[in-house]
Amino acid sequence: MDIVEFHPTADQLAYTFGGVEPVMGIRPGTALHLWSEDAFNGVLRTADDRFSERVDLRFVNPQTGPFHVEGAEPGDALALHLVDLQPARDTGVSTTVPLFGGLTATDRTALLHPPLPERTWVYPVDRARGTVGFVPHGDGPGVELPLDPMLGTIGVAPAGGEARSSLVPDRYGGNLDSPQVRAGATVYLGVNVPGARFSLGDGHYRQGEGEACGTGVEGAMHSTVIVELVKGGAPPWPRVETDDHLVSLGSSRPLEDAWRIAQLDLLRWVQQLVGFDELDAYQLLSQTVEAPLANVVDANYTAAVKVAKRYVPGAAAFDGLHADLRERARALS
Amino acid sequence: MDIVEFHPTADQLAYTFGGVEPVMGIRPGTALHLWSEDAFNGVLRTADDRFSERVDLRFVNPQTGPFHVEGAEPGDALALHLVDLQPARDTGVSTTVPLFGGLTATDRTALLHPPLPERTWVYPVDRARGTVGFVPHGDGPGVELPLDPMLGTIGVAPAGGEARSSLVPDRYGGNLDSPQVRAGATVYLGVNVPGARFSLGDGHYRQGEGEACGTGVEGAMHSTVIVELVKGGAPPWPRVETDDHLVSLGSSRPLEDAWRIAQLDLLRWVQQLVGFDELDAYQLLSQTVEAPLANVVDANYTAAVKVAKRYVPGAAAFDGLHADLRERARALS
Amino acid sequence: MDIVEFHPTADQLAYTFGGVEPVMGIRPGTALHLWSEDAFNGVLRTADDRFSERVDLRFVNPQTGPFHVEGAEPGDALALHLVDLQPARDTGVSTTVPLFGGLTATDRTALLHPPLPERTWVYPVDRARGTVGFVPHGDGPGVELPLDPMLGTIGVAPAGGEARSSLVPDRYGGNLDSPQVRAGATVYLGVNVPGARFSLGDGHYRQGEGEACGTGVEGAMHSTVIVELVKGGAPPWPRVETDDHLVSLGSSRPLEDAWRIAQLDLLRWVQQLVGFDELDAYQLLSQTVEAPLANVVDANYTAAVKVAKRYVPGAAAFDGLHADLRERARALS
Amino acid sequence: MDIVEFHPTADQLAYTFGGVEPVMGIRPGTALHLWSEDAFNGVLRTADDRFSERVDLRFVNPQTGPFHVEGAEPGDALALHLVDLQPARDTGVSTTVPLFGGLTATDRTALLHPPLPERTWVYPVDRARGTVGFVPHGDGPGVELPLDPMLGTIGVAPAGGEARSSLVPDRYGGNLDSPQVRAGATVYLGVNVPGARFSLGDGHYRQGEGEACGTGVEGAMHSTVIVELVKGGAPPWPRVETDDHLVSLGSSRPLEDAWRIAQLDLLRWVQQLVGFDELDAYQLLSQTVEAPLANVVDANYTAAVKVAKRYVPGAAAFDGLHADLRERARALS
Repeated sequence: MDIVEFHPTADQLAYTFGGVEPVMGIRPGTALHLWSEDAFNGVLRTADDRFSERVDLRFVNPQTGPFHVEGAEPGDALALHLVDLQPARDTGVSTTVPLFGGLTATDRTALLHPPLPERTWVYPVDRARGTVGFVPHGDGPGVELPLDPMLGTIGVAPAGGEARSSLVPDRYGGNLDSPQVRAGATVYLGVNVPGARFSLGDGHYRQGEGEACGTGVEGAMHSTVIVELVKGGAPPWPRVETDDHLVSLGSSRPLEDAWRIAQLDLLRWVQQLVGFDELDAYQLLSQTVEAPLANVVDANYTAAVKVAKRYVPGAAAFDGLHADLRERARALS
Repeated sequence: MDIVEFHPTADQLAYTFGGVEPVMGIRPGTALHLWSEDAFNGVLRTADDRFSERVDLRFVNPQTGPFHVEGAEPGDALALHLVDLQPARDTGVSTTVPLFGGLTATDRTALLHPPLPERTWVYPVDRARGTVGFVPHGDGPGVELPLDPMLGTIGVAPAGGEARSSLVPDRYGGNLDSPQVRAGATVYLGVNVPGARFSLGDGHYRQGEGEACGTGVEGAMHSTVIVELVKGGAPPWPRVETDDHLVSLGSSRPLEDAWRIAQLDLLRWVQQLVGFDELDAYQLLSQTVEAPLANVVDANYTAAVKVAKRYVPGAAAFDGLHADLRERARALS
Repeated sequence: MDIVEFHPTADQLAYTFGGVEPVMGIRPGTALHLWSEDAFNGVLRTADDRFSERVDLRFVNPQTGPFHVEGAEPGDALALHLVDLQPARDTGVSTTVPLFGGLTATDRTALLHPPLPERTWVYPVDRARGTVGFVPHGDGPGVELPLDPMLGTIGVAPAGGEARSSLVPDRYGGNLDSPQVRAGATVYLGVNVPGARFSLGDGHYRQGEGEACGTGVEGAMHSTVIVELVKGGAPPWPRVETDDHLVSLGSSRPLEDAWRIAQLDLLRWVQQLVGFDELDAYQLLSQTVEAPLANVVDANYTAAVKVAKRYVPGAAAFDGLHADLRERARALS
Repeated sequence: MDIVEFHPTADQLAYTFGGVEPVMGIRPGTALHLWSEDAFNGVLRTADDRFSERVDLRFVNPQTGPFHVEGAEPGDALALHLVDLQPARDTGVSTTVPLFGGLTATDRTALLHPPLPERTWVYPVDRARGTVGFVPHGDGPGVELPLDPMLGTIGVAPAGGEARSSLVPDRYGGNLDSPQVRAGATVYLGVNVPGARFSLGDGHYRQGEGEACGTGVEGAMHSTVIVELVKGGAPPWPRVETDDHLVSLGSSRPLEDAWRIAQLDLLRWVQQLVGFDELDAYQLLSQTVEAPLANVVDANYTAAVKVAKRYVPGAAAFDGLHADLRERARALS
């Protein structure tokens, strides 16, 4: 297996999906050891740092990549198997952002309220205990929370010559902010341009579903990823496979449309794997899916719909690629 | 403990929350053994029965109740502890409903498409194995699914002299269609009228999150419920407590508003229990909650936001009533 | 023509559509001279009066009615021709309401912001000039605005045994808050219960489209209304006819669903009148309608879609009833 | 006055805002005579042509431009005064598009329905009568409609290195599809990149508010535009000024957010011009605005909120630039 390590310099970071030249080309089958900067470009370090004073809004969610995948063509599926995600700093950080988040007026839900107060929380990482620590500013106890690393952004270049901010999730992936994108998962993305040009970043040491305040426990991340290609297998929306689940991710507004996209995409996926007709697939999934929200804060909201594989007996997804990648991942460690 | 059994006759069933006289009065502390009819009034029995031919739309989601709770006044919290839910028939049933559901045009998402085809699925209950059986109409395998009984509707009379169809969820509860409302849970509802006038029904032998096709595995249900009253403790929206979780349920449209309601209500609840200030509670919940959808099909959509109790150390909710009710429930069996 | 005058006493006012006994019965063809109280029950009189201190939320949008219309049966259309609307006080009043309105957090768009400040504006009525006067609290000039009286609420009892707050618009009418409901217009409502039980109120001396701050220039109103009945002609949603336009009113959330309802209802109406097939009606209306918002603040939002009659040549709506009512109205003055 | 004529060749057309090199540079004050291709690249010519067979989805809404405006810097306002819009063909065309439009399932409102039927309407232009002719495919009369030319797309390059499809409206303008963008209007857009890089296209010979079926009466257009620059005057969202009205255009989903953006932007604009405080501006606009929808079909929906200038006495917008441009326009003819 080709193994490539890449730690971008500051001027190699990208801030859009599309519209950026690749940092390198790789062959399908390559394992990548990647370092990614945190969402704030590392400028929030103490509980006194304020987003509006420190963060340059043109430089958020810096991307590691894009990578050109040899042979990837529009209509193919890019498979990104997340072998391992490890915090690359000793602290994670979360913050409120003026007019951004789920329980605040925003630039879209445009209201007369002044912004909520800014506040930053620094979470010490305890690798031995596998935790991050929540420390309140006001009254109340500190709380130890399990480390549960995930990637907020993962995506390819969009279709139609578009370049989209790394703050946006859509059908090409992007800022999905979904806890489903964690170690052990394979992410499938439809390729839109030759070489796919995928990138990732925005590591979260953990995040609640919905990402209410607008940020997870943000942190620089070491990611180990195996890259594969399925010729002609492009899914219309991002899909995730784990050992136990199939997941579709829809992104749009209002939130019900994000959910409809995910529910319908999973239905089509299951139809194809099991051979059900449309209404039977509709029925079976209606009784079996979980629907954990990803984010209700980004330019598009993202909803996940997932089903346990045991409820959809049939052909293996992508001809068993996930199991194969799991096998290859073991060889890496 | 007072123990009351009630199996309504057809003419005792109610079809609204509010606007209906109580079927009986009970005292706080009473345990109820209730039978509830299924959502379709029991008229869908075979896979050939069609909703539009069999179901009288004025008579869906029949309610068992309402019950007048002695001493309940506006501003109190009604606590309904679900001791046990057991299928009361040997088959559950699910169906598509013309212009109702999550992946179809509806009377609100009004489009030019003709309705989707109607189809009914009958699920045999296997009590020994603890399963219901999905049987496709077309190709593909049957699938055995775990029994996981829940109540689709549970609620009190609304405020302001309103009477609402039992198809609607809102701040008084109603047709929440949330899998969180299962055995072992305590549901808290704010009382709006003297006596509270709560009712329940719409049993589901199981249901996926989102209830995509518009109906769960619907079935008549035996419910054992202990009723309690917390003077002055009315929550603004329905809350659920289990041994491990606190849950808030918001209902509105668009779906992001249902989620905002639930996220904010849980935040206020946690603030009060733990003593956090607003922003600290916002932060901690942003990193810890689960956000499983309830329904994206009813007149209002319902979102649940839940947090594990271990992440919110503090005073017990409602002074430990849930633990006390669990204790009392054990005495019942 | 039967002519009936009715000025309700305070204890005759209704606060719901449905769930209230009629104040009187009338025959189709009757002309009513009605007085209606303002939305705040007349308690806001000076620019120092604050909503939260003066207004009892259980008593807002008081209704004049309901009236029982002899012979009205479910499936009929009730036609309410607004002959004349005249301010019944020398001042109108508008106010911000805590957590209510279009540019504020609300009980549904639930956010962490504190309510916006409360402020009340009193608008003197100048009948001779036909104006109301806007007087700013802070800097800037006063502005004279044309009187343009309309009714915020007009509706019948809902179906299914429901009773709905007079703050809500829906398919039975209610709190539509649409400037289309003005003198010279005929409002058509589908009858749901014997006698129809219609009521009206919430007069606005004028209102902008969208009703952004949540209230119009609210004022007690003298309304002259001719009541007619079209057997079997129930429209699915409220419709309005003027000398020049056909209008459909949809109410739901999100706002696009309110618009879809109105657009589709107008399409069906035009199809029936002109004989177009579905796609031709879709096309013609796509190029000809106006789509002025009604309210984006109520429990459901309301959108109007209207088309000039000159663009839809065909049979007269409701067999020419509007023209006939205009004729009868002239006989009244 | 510099006068420049530009008729792009097919390979000069652009399909994004941003991400494209300018076709030419111009100085502020220049008058442009532009030709723009129709939304379908001219391939739909007869009522038998079907969108899905003829139109290449990568090539829709072709843009004339972008133009580099000398001296334009981020933070400036670009003023585009539409002197004249004239149909450049003898027929306009409209069509249904599979899974696109307001009364159909779409890629976002993802449902199980098959697409609506495709149908194309050709509208003959009668310049002498100033009309276009609607010709139904099925029963019913033809209808003559007034010519009312407008531009569906007008915009600048977005901020943050983004490139957006010419099918999308957002804060940089783009596919606004608003009938407010007609001859006699001045459109103000905030500049995001040096040179502004504006383009326009997607002419409609007329369009109803909401653009329900997804397309107006599309046609190639001759546009005469005077370009000006206001240093430091960037509005946050597109604004339009006519002789009588100030208009703000908000674009987002759900539709209430598009409306909130427009309502709040107009409020801020009026505050600045008249000197009102926030609540007084909120109040005055609540009673005076019109809120005609633009489109409820594009990737973002667009709402217009407009106020008559006579209701907001104060300083002239942009120091009277619109009146000045009107004067200059007269010199052109």
